[in-house]
Amino acid sequence: MGAAVAEGRDTQDRGRASETRRSPSGKEILPRIAVSLGDPNGIGPEIVLKTLSTPGLYDIIRPMVVGSVSVLRDHAKILGLDHISFQNFDGENFGREPNSIIVLEVGLEPEVEVHFAEERAEAGELALLAVQQVTDLCLEHKADAMVTAPLSKKAVSMAGHSFRGHTEFIRERSGSASCIMMMVSDQMKLGLVTDHISLSCVAESISFDAIGQKIADLAFALNSDFGIESPSIAVLGLNPHAGEGDVLGHEESRILIPAIRRAKSRGFSVDGPFPADGFFGTKAYESYDAVLAMYHDQGLIPFKTLAFDSGVNFTAGLPIVRTSPVHGTAFGIAGTGTASSESMMRAFELAARIATRRKNVTV
Amino acid sequence: MGAAVAEGRDTQDRGRASETRRSPSGKEILPRIAVSLGDPNGIGPEIVLKTLSTPGLYDIIRPMVVGSVSVLRDHAKILGLDHISFQNFDGENFGREPNSIIVLEVGLEPEVEVHFAEERAEAGELALLAVQQVTDLCLEHKADAMVTAPLSKKAVSMAGHSFRGHTEFIRERSGSASCIMMMVSDQMKLGLVTDHISLSCVAESISFDAIGQKIADLAFALNSDFGIESPSIAVLGLNPHAGEGDVLGHEESRILIPAIRRAKSRGFSVDGPFPADGFFGTKAYESYDAVLAMYHDQGLIPFKTLAFDSGVNFTAGLPIVRTSPVHGTAFGIAGTGTASSESMMRAFELAARIATRRKNVTV
Repeated sequence: MGAAVAEGRDTQDRGRASETRRSPSGKEILPRIAVSLGDPNGIGPEIVLKTLSTPGLYDIIRPMVVGSVSVLRDHAKILGLDHISFQNFDGENFGREPNSIIVLEVGLEPEVEVHFAEERAEAGELALLAVQQVTDLCLEHKADAMVTAPLSKKAVSMAGHSFRGHTEFIRERSGSASCIMMMVSDQMKLGLVTDHISLSCVAESISFDAIGQKIADLAFALNSDFGIESPSIAVLGLNPHAGEGDVLGHEESRILIPAIRRAKSRGFSVDGPFPADGFFGTKAYESYDAVLAMYHDQGLIPFKTLAFDSGVNFTAGLPIVRTSPVHGTAFGIAGTGTASSESMMRAFELAARIATRRKNVTV
Repeated sequence: MGAAVAEGRDTQDRGRASETRRSPSGKEILPRIAVSLGDPNGIGPEIVLKTLSTPGLYDIIRPMVVGSVSVLRDHAKILGLDHISFQNFDGENFGREPNSIIVLEVGLEPEVEVHFAEERAEAGELALLAVQQVTDLCLEHKADAMVTAPLSKKAVSMAGHSFRGHTEFIRERSGSASCIMMMVSDQMKLGLVTDHISLSCVAESISFDAIGQKIADLAFALNSDFGIESPSIAVLGLNPHAGEGDVLGHEESRILIPAIRRAKSRGFSVDGPFPADGFFGTKAYESYDAVLAMYHDQGLIPFKTLAFDSGVNFTAGLPIVRTSPVHGTAFGIAGTGTASSESMMRAFELAARIATRRKNVTV
């Protein structure tokens, strides 16, 4: 495992964000990455602007935005980025420099106005349309990867759409049977068995098949997208103390342990189930290529406690590459210009790295 | 809140573990603390020995152990602590120096043998009897506080006893209606609404009354046991993203928000419900005197991620003072002599501080 871990870490070094590919003429080929604007009233447009106006970004990718120029202009004013010009996307003109941002208008009428920190139906409509169009650009191979800025599920719901989360949305739209929500940072890689569901539905969603499928999905992603040859995976328990020998719950003995045994017999390198609190307390995650958590907060609480600004969300197991920052719309600081774009920048870097590794780059 | 927070932090400084009380003759009165041995096959006896053989401990408390001399001798041999002598507890002779440890035998026949890392019925029996007797010593005011070393719930169950956890056990034995499991470290204080139950039972256990009761319990403990005058409490959401406006669960809008509103109207300083992952990711806990988590792993994962060795478990809201280290039996390293006694030492310090504050010291 040592070598696999070492290689896994290696590919995460920031300095090696993109392994360059070259065209037959020797010209460097950079991955084309489309980003959805997110909710116009949250920090999405702000962190998109901050990232896309960073000169270094253009050394590793060619970006474009799907959203609304007027929303971008409103945010740019606050950020003192008035000098940036916005060009229409023509299907091929991905960005080449930080002062000229390429935008595909989703074209809502009337134009959506910015109302900072408000959850509004038309904002949810704009945010969802942007995700749809970015997804389609990738499915049609017009972009090599997609990054999504945060949207408000409530605003999308106010617009009359059912939206459980980007992961599920993109899985359905791409016609994929299975995928897995992953979190990636320098400290750890983490996969979730269940993600955006109520806590009351978690236990009933944990099945022998679901665990087996997610172990396979996670191992496949670690191998194909992160270059880890025989990835080692730690599986967390569902119950406190991982059920403590059936005293605090039966899912470990009835579901998790049999599923882990089955995965081992199929050749996967899997350990567990581990009591989740002690697992993170003792830094046991340092001994594994990835951790498989049973539900959203079980994974995301320790992940964000250890790496808030630098973590990235990656939807693994799909035909298209999608990453996003780990935070939400942050309505509390929307419009103040104080949002950190660190996680968004990391999301672009990871998307670039994975898209290049998959050799889907076709510019 | 600033002053309250400052005071709360202050009382946690390690150097001020015990505010000394003096007898009428001016002699210093130290709190008498009884510790239960824990599972003989785990690390409990090891960390008890390591702590009780630390000279500095006797500057702040007078300790004694409830358990088994033969088990302690077996562990002492491995630790190179053969020079320690063991004296029988006579009801008053709490320890005064690190080379002579006072022990109350629970008196199982035949004597329990040590089988490192094994879960055995007689070990569970010994561990549970020790907890019972330590609790009774406190209830009878023969000790001022109790510390419990970790036991195996499975071993206790093999011995034919139903045991959900120390917290619940001591609450029942002391005839108390309510109590709250708290975790205490330099980084944060945390209370749990539910603790040692299956994850599948968590959502149904979250009620308007339960939240209100736990807010009151936590505020009372912060005030009376930590000297924080108007404690501020942050309440975490139950669901991912705290339900995100009813899209990911209804408990926030139907139960948590009304319960928080009710607590505010009763004069408590409470905020929330907060999405748990972002709350810890942004270090929002630094702005509150304490955090109220909905279930075991939601609280204990971030708590242990931030402070594993130095955290302490405190059962608040009972007539008796009980603390314990935050870790378990650690069968994986039992008998190797490598266990850290840091958390156990902190447990003694916190028990001493709270017992002294309650002015229950009667030596």
